[in-house]
This record gives sequence, structure tokens and C-alpha cells, in this order.
Amino acid sequence: MAIKVVAFDADDTLWINEPYFQEIEKKFCELLEDYIPHHTVSQELFKTEMQNLALYGYGVKGFMLSMIETALRISNKTISIDIVEKAIAYGKDLLEKPIELLDGVEETIKALKKDYRLVVATKGDLLDQERKLKKSGLSHYFHHIEIMSDKQEADYHKLIKHLDIKPEEMLMIGNSLKSDVLPVISIGGHAIHVPYHTTWAHEKIDHNIEHQNFKQVSSINEVLPFLLS
Amino acid sequence: MAIKVVAFDADDTLWINEPYFQEIEKKFCELLEDYIPHHTVSQELFKTEMQNLALYGYGVKGFMLSMIETALRISNKTISIDIVEKAIAYGKDLLEKPIELLDGVEETIKALKKDYRLVVATKGDLLDQERKLKKSGLSHYFHHIEIMSDKQEADYHKLIKHLDIKPEEMLMIGNSLKSDVLPVISIGGHAIHVPYHTTWAHEKIDHNIEHQNFKQVSSINEVLPFLLS
Repeated sequence: MAIKVVAFDADDTLWINEPYFQEIEKKFCELLEDYIPHHTVSQELFKTEMQNLALYGYGVKGFMLSMIETALRISNKTISIDIVEKAIAYGKDLLEKPIELLDGVEETIKALKKDYRLVVATKGDLLDQERKLKKSGLSHYFHHIEIMSDKQEADYHKLIKHLDIKPEEMLMIGNSLKSDVLPVISIGGHAIHVPYHTTWAHEKIDHNIEHQNFKQVSSINEVLPFLLS
Repeated sequence: MAIKVVAFDADDTLWINEPYFQEIEKKFCELLEDYIPHHTVSQELFKTEMQNLALYGYGVKGFMLSMIETALRISNKTISIDIVEKAIAYGKDLLEKPIELLDGVEETIKALKKDYRLVVATKGDLLDQERKLKKSGLSHYFHHIEIMSDKQEADYHKLIKHLDIKPEEMLMIGNSLKSDVLPVISIGGHAIHVPYHTTWAHEKIDHNIEHQNFKQVSSINEVLPFLLS
């Protein structure tokens, strides 16, 4: 491998994210349990998010708007206005969460920085992701942060062009097989999957991947030994 | 001037934007006129937007959330849930507005493309701005679109670094003296102000600018003759 750039996904690869969303979603479902069961609220919220994805993109603000829209729809507009207020407050809490780095992250990127140009390649709200990187204390390891409106092949082509490298010179490391691995190996790049214990339904795929440019590890601590081997 | 990159602001420089926001704001104020006067709703909405700016950043989704929050606050949570539903619908309309190019824009960028690298440098929601550029039919003139979380000096330093040029090799063209002109000339770049007939209160400044790197024009049609002169 003649890797020049190592790109890291951010949420649930560098730091904890999905559990915070799930915590908010749980509180939101509890608010609406008088109307419909917890599990159904969760399904309806996911449905709203998927319907709004093309319009809103990824990130907390879209999630907030989808919570409000879901509450209106499933209550047939009979909910108390307090629930709207709470959905906004929950979202603001989410935007202000502290950053908790995942184990092994800082040691790994510190070591990789000696040999590679490092970037963060993530979806989500621009300002929110920039703020999280700043709060993480990891900014100085990275050449820059690339906020992508989506992580499909065309988006990675744009990233490659922007980085002024060939696809085979990029290694992507992330927790989502769907977003961080499949499109990257499909355009000729390399990818390492570092799973996280919980995954957003939208990011799940139901088949195994075998490819010469793909490596499955169980923790980010295996990345360095693999690259040095 | 040894300009290499010409950067264009997008909203109200390349295409119509602020009037669409004002149209939605007007409809929103009318919804709340039973509670407080139109002008006061508008002031309260602006107050909410400013309070949320550091958290939400710029763009339509933050505007939608601020409309909802304002409606709750000024009605002391007595508004009908219909108003929340309408605020969401208004915001979605805003995200789906067609793109109307401003006069002279395409001719100007088409001519400038021969001699300069062109970029779009704009605030707002990432996905929304990418979509607007795509809908505008102007994408192919631009090297890329840079979505900036803010347009202060530090953000322009980042842009300059990213473009791999010196500040004096960049010319910024935009309708906001505050965002497109002051920070750019302050870091050593060049700027041309193309005013638009209406400006968001947040972008207004109350003094005149005189600087060797600054040019005031009354329309984008004057940009080309000025650069060729």
C-alpha cells in the first residue's frame, strides 16, 4: 500500500456519538408514550428522518426538526406544546455534549501523523462537527476536516480530487461499513472497519465484505500494527 | 493585482435569497399577530436567531428551529400546535425554492473563468448550499464550493490555506460588507462589494470603507471592466 492520506470518520470512530442520540431518542419516546408505544415512536421517528434526509441532510438540527414533526404526526396534533419545547431543549443538549474520545484514538493518530497526512471526513452539521473537533483537542493532528453532505462514491471522488491524490493513496477508517468502507473500496481506495458497539439503523448493512483493500479490526488499537506490518 | 482565485459569496450575490427569508418571516409574523404586533414578532425572531447563532450556525434549519422557539416564547406556550406545523412547512418550502440567478452573474463568471480559479465561499447549511449551486447550473464554472461555518478573519485564513495561495492572491466578491469585505481586506486580500437591495440585519454595518484593496460597484456587471482596466 502506498497510502498518503488517512481519513478518519468522526462520530463513533474518534468519539462517542450514537449513544447520545439514543439517549435523547429514548427520552423523546417516553414523552410520547401516552399516545403510542415506545417502540412505535422510535419507528415513526426513523421514518420521518428518512423522509427528510434528502432535504435536511445529516446532523442534530435535522434530528430536532424530525422529532417535532413526528410528535405532531403521531399525536394527530393533539400533543401539548411542552413536548415541542422539550424536543428543542433535548437537541440543544445534544449540541452541547462534551466530547469523549474513544480508547486508543489519540495514540493511534499521534503515531500515524508521522507518516501520513490525516484528515477527518464526516457527515453532519458543519458548525457542530467543527466544534466537536475543536473540543476533542485533536485538531492539531489533522490537516483539515472535510464535512461531506453524504458518503457515497461521488462524495469520495470529490474528496480524493480535493486532496489531490489517487484513490489508492487514501485509507479511510470508520465504524460504518455502509458509509466508510463500501464506497471507498468501490472507487479503489483502502478501508479499515473499526466497529462500534451500537450503529444507527440507517448505517446498517446485512452482508459481509471481502476485498483485498479492506481490513476488519476489532479495535482502533489494531490499526497501527496492521499498517506497520 | 496578481489575483489567482476569485471567490464569490452565494446568497444575494449569485442568486436571490434574502427576499425568500423575508417572505417566510412575514408569513410567520402574520400567524402570531393575535399575540403580539408584527414588528415585535420580527424583533423577537431576530433575538432568538442571534441567541442560537453560536449553537446552530447559519442556514434554514436553524431558522426553522428559531421560528418555533420564538412562537413558544412570545405566546407563553399558548399557541396552537398548527403554528409549529406551519413553521416547519414554511422552512421546507424555503429549502425547495427554485434558484433565480441575479442579472449579469453568469456572463461575469463565464468571462472570469478564463483567467482565474473560481470558488464559491458561503455560509449556511452544507447540503442546502450544495443543492442550490447544483440547481443554479453554475457548478461547472467553479473549482469547488467552500461552506464556511462563519466568515471572520480566521475562517478566511483557513480558506486561503486550503486554496494554497497568499491572501493578496484572492479577490472576494459579495453583497455583505461585514462578511465578504471587511475580514478579507483585513487579512490582506482584495474585495469587491456588490450591494443587494435588501440585507439581513445581522449583516449590516454602519460605516464606510475606504481601502486600496477594496472596490465598491453598483452591479456585478462592473466587475469585469474593473478587473480588465
